[in-house]
Amino acid sequence: MENSKAIPYKIYLEENEMPKSWYNVRADMKVKPAPLLNPGTLAPMTAEELGGVFCADLVEQELDNDTRFVPIPQEIRDFYKMYRPSPLVRAYCLEKKLNTPAKIYYKFEGNNTSGSHKLNSAIAQAYYAKKQGLKGVTTETGAGQWGTALSMACAYLGLDCKVFMVKVSYEQKPFRREVMRVYGADVTPSPSMTTQVGQKILAEHPGTTGSLGCAISEAVEVAVGNPGYRYVLGSVLNQVLLHQSVIGQETKAALDKYGIVPDIIIGCAGGGSNLGGLIAPFMGEKLRGEKDYRIIAVEPASCPSFTRGVYAYDFCDTGMVCPLAKMYTLGSDFIPAPNHAGGLRYHGMSPILSQLYHDGYMEAVSVPQTSVFEAAEEFARVEGILPAPESSHAIRVAIDEALKCKETGEEKTIVFGLTGTGYFDLVAYQKFHEGQMDDYVPTDEELAQFRARLPKVD
Amino acid sequence: MENSKAIPYKIYLEENEMPKSWYNVRADMKVKPAPLLNPGTLAPMTAEELGGVFCADLVEQELDNDTRFVPIPQEIRDFYKMYRPSPLVRAYCLEKKLNTPAKIYYKFEGNNTSGSHKLNSAIAQAYYAKKQGLKGVTTETGAGQWGTALSMACAYLGLDCKVFMVKVSYEQKPFRREVMRVYGADVTPSPSMTTQVGQKILAEHPGTTGSLGCAISEAVEVAVGNPGYRYVLGSVLNQVLLHQSVIGQETKAALDKYGIVPDIIIGCAGGGSNLGGLIAPFMGEKLRGEKDYRIIAVEPASCPSFTRGVYAYDFCDTGMVCPLAKMYTLGSDFIPAPNHAGGLRYHGMSPILSQLYHDGYMEAVSVPQTSVFEAAEEFARVEGILPAPESSHAIRVAIDEALKCKETGEEKTIVFGLTGTGYFDLVAYQKFHEGQMDDYVPTDEELAQFRARLPKVD
Repeated sequence: MENSKAIPYKIYLEENEMPKSWYNVRADMKVKPAPLLNPGTLAPMTAEELGGVFCADLVEQELDNDTRFVPIPQEIRDFYKMYRPSPLVRAYCLEKKLNTPAKIYYKFEGNNTSGSHKLNSAIAQAYYAKKQGLKGVTTETGAGQWGTALSMACAYLGLDCKVFMVKVSYEQKPFRREVMRVYGADVTPSPSMTTQVGQKILAEHPGTTGSLGCAISEAVEVAVGNPGYRYVLGSVLNQVLLHQSVIGQETKAALDKYGIVPDIIIGCAGGGSNLGGLIAPFMGEKLRGEKDYRIIAVEPASCPSFTRGVYAYDFCDTGMVCPLAKMYTLGSDFIPAPNHAGGLRYHGMSPILSQLYHDGYMEAVSVPQTSVFEAAEEFARVEGILPAPESSHAIRVAIDEALKCKETGEEKTIVFGLTGTGYFDLVAYQKFHEGQMDDYVPTDEELAQFRARLPKVD
Repeated sequence: MENSKAIPYKIYLEENEMPKSWYNVRADMKVKPAPLLNPGTLAPMTAEELGGVFCADLVEQELDNDTRFVPIPQEIRDFYKMYRPSPLVRAYCLEKKLNTPAKIYYKFEGNNTSGSHKLNSAIAQAYYAKKQGLKGVTTETGAGQWGTALSMACAYLGLDCKVFMVKVSYEQKPFRREVMRVYGADVTPSPSMTTQVGQKILAEHPGTTGSLGCAISEAVEVAVGNPGYRYVLGSVLNQVLLHQSVIGQETKAALDKYGIVPDIIIGCAGGGSNLGGLIAPFMGEKLRGEKDYRIIAVEPASCPSFTRGVYAYDFCDTGMVCPLAKMYTLGSDFIPAPNHAGGLRYHGMSPILSQLYHDGYMEAVSVPQTSVFEAAEEFARVEGILPAPESSHAIRVAIDEALKCKETGEEKTIVFGLTGTGYFDLVAYQKFHEGQMDDYVPTDEELAQFRARLPKVD
């Protein structure tokens, strides 16, 4: 009989301990995230206007700054049971390797075919589209995880799924398209000639490797132009952070079960869906003044929205067809160097996280690509899991913080989000192994150029 | 509060419920598997002779037909905790899709970077090599799962790892090599010019796409020729089935927890490691006359060792450098058509399973490749997991049995082994989608040719 108080390598919740509601952090924010603006009138987007792009229930969730807990429909909870609860892993082997007094935990969201946390929101968005009687949905995907997740959700519910995939990822991840095809999705590399906005972008930037911003523009155009279709987005939006709160709630429940209180919570940040989900209940406690935590967003040095962007209204997409959001942004026509963390190549950031960062509730750091892959490989060799490049940004900073504890002797408890696996990122790993990986960081002059083109609002 | 007696989607054991011993099914076999024979003298291999190829503790396990429970060393149990217990999943969604009264469960071994159950034996074999003070190990790999698993185990323990990978898999799975490189392994496509046996095979069969049998010969040659190295094998051997019994023991413990008794247990069979592990404790009950189960081995129609092979002494490898084993075999120089389930392209079969099959304790069926991918895709779309082609053989037959229940109205309980994920099998899925997959089955005349060349023993 082992010590029942010992913390296991993996903490799994029981099925009946899984969250029954999503937590809406906006309910506890004193300063709410700024509303989306109509790109024509610059007035806040109404529910009716948003309803042309998003399905009705999701519009309601997008605009709801007050309801603290939103019940998760039973059908979605059933789908969650297919691949959730995800384990909260105690990184005993990594701690030993680093010889640190820090206690390291990671919430691992990669144990599903999409390879990431994206499925949490994909099934929710597909569910509400189905409920509304729609024929299908359109979307963009960067690394391909969101597209795969949406394909899986649509296959499960019998919805049509059209995916615009950032061209650089489409080319670097030839097998991602094939996975989406297993799930019956239609995948187009973006920018493409199949949309007006794609044609325009290609005319202005011939040979571009694309960006999430471009792909969003194309997907929105197709959704708005096809009756029975709506657009869905895998990150940035308030509704997505709401759905992703299931990550944080499971994490907190697992920690609470063993009486563990984290000191530092770390997540990678592209559009903010993983980070926003992971930190949600902890941020809630912090906002209500009940507890304090260090919360750290990690972004690639090649696309440093938080650390070198500005807090301003900007377009969510490169084609400027979407509403404007107030967020930390590099400018909607910023196209980052082709680094390999496709999921972090977004010029902007979740408006919720942007407001929280602006109000001092969280920190942000940016890290160069090579150091991220070094951390990824070190992690893989002791913890077994081959991490996605996106997730490895969080690993890098978790290791750095654990090494600081080694110097100071502090026994801090570090929790980070391991958002996914790197099985479709082997081209990037190969470049890393062969010394062909670059650590390009945009210059201040470059960033200033994009900043100068931000829309003039208030 | 949900009904506490309801069977959850996934049954996880607690860490302290994980098996502390492996179960050795040979202890309960009235007719023991036939011993390995020295290829020169045709006398049973002694421990001393085996010690030149395998490390000492593994030789002991290989020869031990009597010890029922072998304690799992603490270090291995700790490694198991990194990725085990694996979930026993109730396939509620598949049942609903098939509209069958059958109850379907699968033991999912794919939630680790090797993508399969292979890690269970890899860590054991690497551990004993390390314990003996060796420098490194050599091995072969087909689909790449075993090679990845061994690389992971060696990286964890700091051992050198040399992998010979069947050429057809090496070419079809370009990223597998990269994963092994993350874990620091040295990977060579087989047959290669780096060994004498490889040179001989290439001279006799120029342009061959290789087979597990060829790769074994090369790995053994390198192990025997390099001081401080031993050879390790991912399947077939008694020791491997012993280690893999952890799958069956977890499965049985999970079923027992909910009072579930299976009627049918199904596993894919290449060399037999997964099937042998999955069925071990159930077969034990059957051998002791305590319970009865239908146990079904599923093999590809292109490589039908059980269903169209003969039970005879044969070489384990194409180069005929290894000991002879009594097993169901197609002949050691049989090289199957390049079907995509690399892990099932082996001419022989575990001696333990061969004896059990010969004695009527289990059944075997062979299935054509296209029908396997149809089952794989049907499964993926409702259960979420993208299965490996190998595992999908078991899915095919589980679905077939569930459909029979639909016709008869019987509420049978079916358990199958889902050995791994298909993230590195997308070339095969692509061929399936594009109608380029063939269902080649060897003719009786072809099989007779190989059979005629079997060694003459007893």
